[in-house]
Amino acid sequence: MCLVCLGIDPGLARVGYGAVMKSGAELRAMNYGCIETTPAMSFTERLLKIYTDLQEQIGVCAPDFVSVERLFFGRNTTTAEYVYQARGVIMLLAAQNNLPVFEPAPNHIKLSLCGNGRADKHTVQETIREVLSLDEIPRPDDTADALAAAVAGLSHYEGG
Amino acid sequence: MCLVCLGIDPGLARVGYGAVMKSGAELRAMNYGCIETTPAMSFTERLLKIYTDLQEQIGVCAPDFVSVERLFFGRNTTTAEYVYQARGVIMLLAAQNNLPVFEPAPNHIKLSLCGNGRADKHTVQETIREVLSLDEIPRPDDTADALAAAVAGLSHYEGG
Repeated sequence: MCLVCLGIDPGLARVGYGAVMKSGAELRAMNYGCIETTPAMSFTERLLKIYTDLQEQIGVCAPDFVSVERLFFGRNTTTAEYVYQARGVIMLLAAQNNLPVFEPAPNHIKLSLCGNGRADKHTVQETIREVLSLDEIPRPDDTADALAAAVAGLSHYEGG
Repeated sequence: MCLVCLGIDPGLARVGYGAVMKSGAELRAMNYGCIETTPAMSFTERLLKIYTDLQEQIGVCAPDFVSVERLFFGRNTTTAEYVYQARGVIMLLAAQNNLPVFEPAPNHIKLSLCGNGRADKHTVQETIREVLSLDEIPRPDDTADALAAAVAGLSHYEGG
């Protein structure tokens, strides 16, 4: 059986995405990258770009489900307000494409990948590079985080 | 000149909407009501219902712009996370329909309508009923709040 998960690291300025295919024991990265928006755009234009670009990536990988990292903010900042609104657009896309959503917390992803819920950023990135047999760590961090969310999602669905 | 504003009171369980047409000195309510979703639906299904139903209302009134009330939460609650995600879907719709967005704070709406930024709920609702020449106060509160956002939006765009 072959299963495709599109991992997403939500944000407003940067939305990381990374599709991973699991076929037997093999994990293979498909399309991955980062959707970027700038403050020069209006807030609604930024949401529209995220919506349009992410829909395009969903079309490319045709995932069986998505894995959208949970957000945590220490305080009720203005940043949180905008990032949650961007996350709403991502969740809407999941519904419109009839995709189940897995929502791992950051420490769940680290535990799943590295066996340690408190693994540092570099360890997570190096693990992602290894399990996906990539030559280099995916950049920016948002892309690597999205691939990590996808791998964690596939482990979860396989009971791993 | 005739101007139509669709006011929206964002939420997850209830999204109030209310279209108001301003023609000269006359204000007239068009379509208004409340989109409701229940916890029996998944979160993404709720977002999809808000998206679909609100798009339908935009089609009915063909607004020149939307007036989306700002949200305020005392603490960074879980409720805030979900409501902001729902608000993101509403803002996306504005972008997709190429509609300018006015984002009044609750006290701005009260000041605009009642001349008092701290007017109580009943005063706001009774004022809305009067300026729109309605027989009864629109129910639920979310609907009345959306109409109030629309009237405040129209005042703002006319320099009122």
